[in-house]
Amino acid sequence: MTIETVSTNKAHGGVQGVYKHVSAATGTEMTFSVFVPDHAPDEKLPVLWYLSGLTCTHANVTEKGEYRAACAKHGIIFVAPDTSPRGDDVPDDEGYDFGKGAGFYVDATEEPWAKHFQMRSYIEKELPELVAANFAADMERQGITGHSMGGHGALTISLRNPGRFCSTSAFAPIVSPLNCPWGEKALTGYVGSDKAAWREYDACALIEDGARLPDLLVDQGLADNFFEEQLKTGLLEKAVGEAGMTATIRLQEGYDHSYYFISTFMAEHVAWHAERLKA
Amino acid sequence: MTIETVSTNKAHGGVQGVYKHVSAATGTEMTFSVFVPDHAPDEKLPVLWYLSGLTCTHANVTEKGEYRAACAKHGIIFVAPDTSPRGDDVPDDEGYDFGKGAGFYVDATEEPWAKHFQMRSYIEKELPELVAANFAADMERQGITGHSMGGHGALTISLRNPGRFCSTSAFAPIVSPLNCPWGEKALTGYVGSDKAAWREYDACALIEDGARLPDLLVDQGLADNFFEEQLKTGLLEKAVGEAGMTATIRLQEGYDHSYYFISTFMAEHVAWHAERLKA
Repeated sequence: MTIETVSTNKAHGGVQGVYKHVSAATGTEMTFSVFVPDHAPDEKLPVLWYLSGLTCTHANVTEKGEYRAACAKHGIIFVAPDTSPRGDDVPDDEGYDFGKGAGFYVDATEEPWAKHFQMRSYIEKELPELVAANFAADMERQGITGHSMGGHGALTISLRNPGRFCSTSAFAPIVSPLNCPWGEKALTGYVGSDKAAWREYDACALIEDGARLPDLLVDQGLADNFFEEQLKTGLLEKAVGEAGMTATIRLQEGYDHSYYFISTFMAEHVAWHAERLKA
Repeated sequence: MTIETVSTNKAHGGVQGVYKHVSAATGTEMTFSVFVPDHAPDEKLPVLWYLSGLTCTHANVTEKGEYRAACAKHGIIFVAPDTSPRGDDVPDDEGYDFGKGAGFYVDATEEPWAKHFQMRSYIEKELPELVAANFAADMERQGITGHSMGGHGALTISLRNPGRFCSTSAFAPIVSPLNCPWGEKALTGYVGSDKAAWREYDACALIEDGARLPDLLVDQGLADNFFEEQLKTGLLEKAVGEAGMTATIRLQEGYDHSYYFISTFMAEHVAWHAERLKA
């Protein structure tokens, strides 16, 4: 479990690093970024996972996410993985919404995707072990968030792993792959046409099937082009309502799907996670 | 003086826009970005100019500068111009430090540069008129800052225009083109080999020759690769010291030349400008 340092830059008193390693889960080299705030030599800090959306790598949020000031203030490590395996021998699709940059945080069972597209195992098992072994991370205090496809990843991973995350939030998440074109394409491709197998990759279905979170924060822009056809926040509102689950789902007037939206609400999300991670 | 809107995104309660126009000064199309915080219909807001460094366009600071939260908090418009004329008929150089992306905020007199490389006139005259005409800008309250080559631009433009700017700061500025390889190459190329003509483009020489600022804030990283050979902050410390000019020049341990450095200190610079712009 060795990692190679690609770059480190001092930022907001801490260190913003980019690292790569050979992943057993994906069978490829994987790159991720970690921001570690300034801390005492023996101190371990809580960890906030950020899963990115379609077409992104670790770099988008690292450059545009505006999370470092808030993470430095609250003493929280911020981890940003890639969204898929990469490399010449990794299969791809012509669309931006499937294949490279679009791993959907699932373990693929269909060919030719199954060999490398094991992003669920990568994010749920392999990368946490790597982070625990290489950074000043208190793995008893983890939170998770993400954007769009990564919001879907954050919600479903947290719902499937009760007790692992003290806090869960999302920016403009895909809330139900069973009910949107992005989800239809991706899950058919990665896990096949039997929709029963999709339910563990669908936040609303997981809640319908009994999974619960202690709390949840979601922000969704009302000027987001993908709101009505792909994201369908209303389905999540319905699911948490019927489940009697505590959730704060905010519809934000005028905001779109971009990092201008994410960066606007990032500091509030980090503070929200901090309250729960440090409780 | 018409401008065309390239994009607008709601961010931190305000509007981050990108605009383009045909410039009389450069004879090319020019692109710039403006962030306007939320404000009352008739309210005019102070303006902070940010001049970018070598290789940059408006986009670098717009994406990575982390200025919007602070500008929204303090009610300050943030304007980020390009660093040179662009286009197929604009001459260029093989190096990253001359030609496109490297206008050095001078009015070129040498051929083939003189036709388009009129960045001094563009930033000092044309763009302020455009901003005044198209945004809720109070041009009686302007501040200026910049990074590296843009720090040089901010210092020299402010020193040459006494009274125009209420506040001046810089991130890792080139303080004396007369005394560094970047300056030697650029000023020889743009304004010729007579170094007497360089002095109005050299912050230290301008101070030596009698120009003064009421106050100045500079941050310089000590892990900056360009610190010793190109930036030479010590020359500015010496010049302001000999002139008896008030200046806060901070050497920041561990910080490099990147936007990780700039974004770390951006909020402090915006707050520093706000104090003076709103006094």
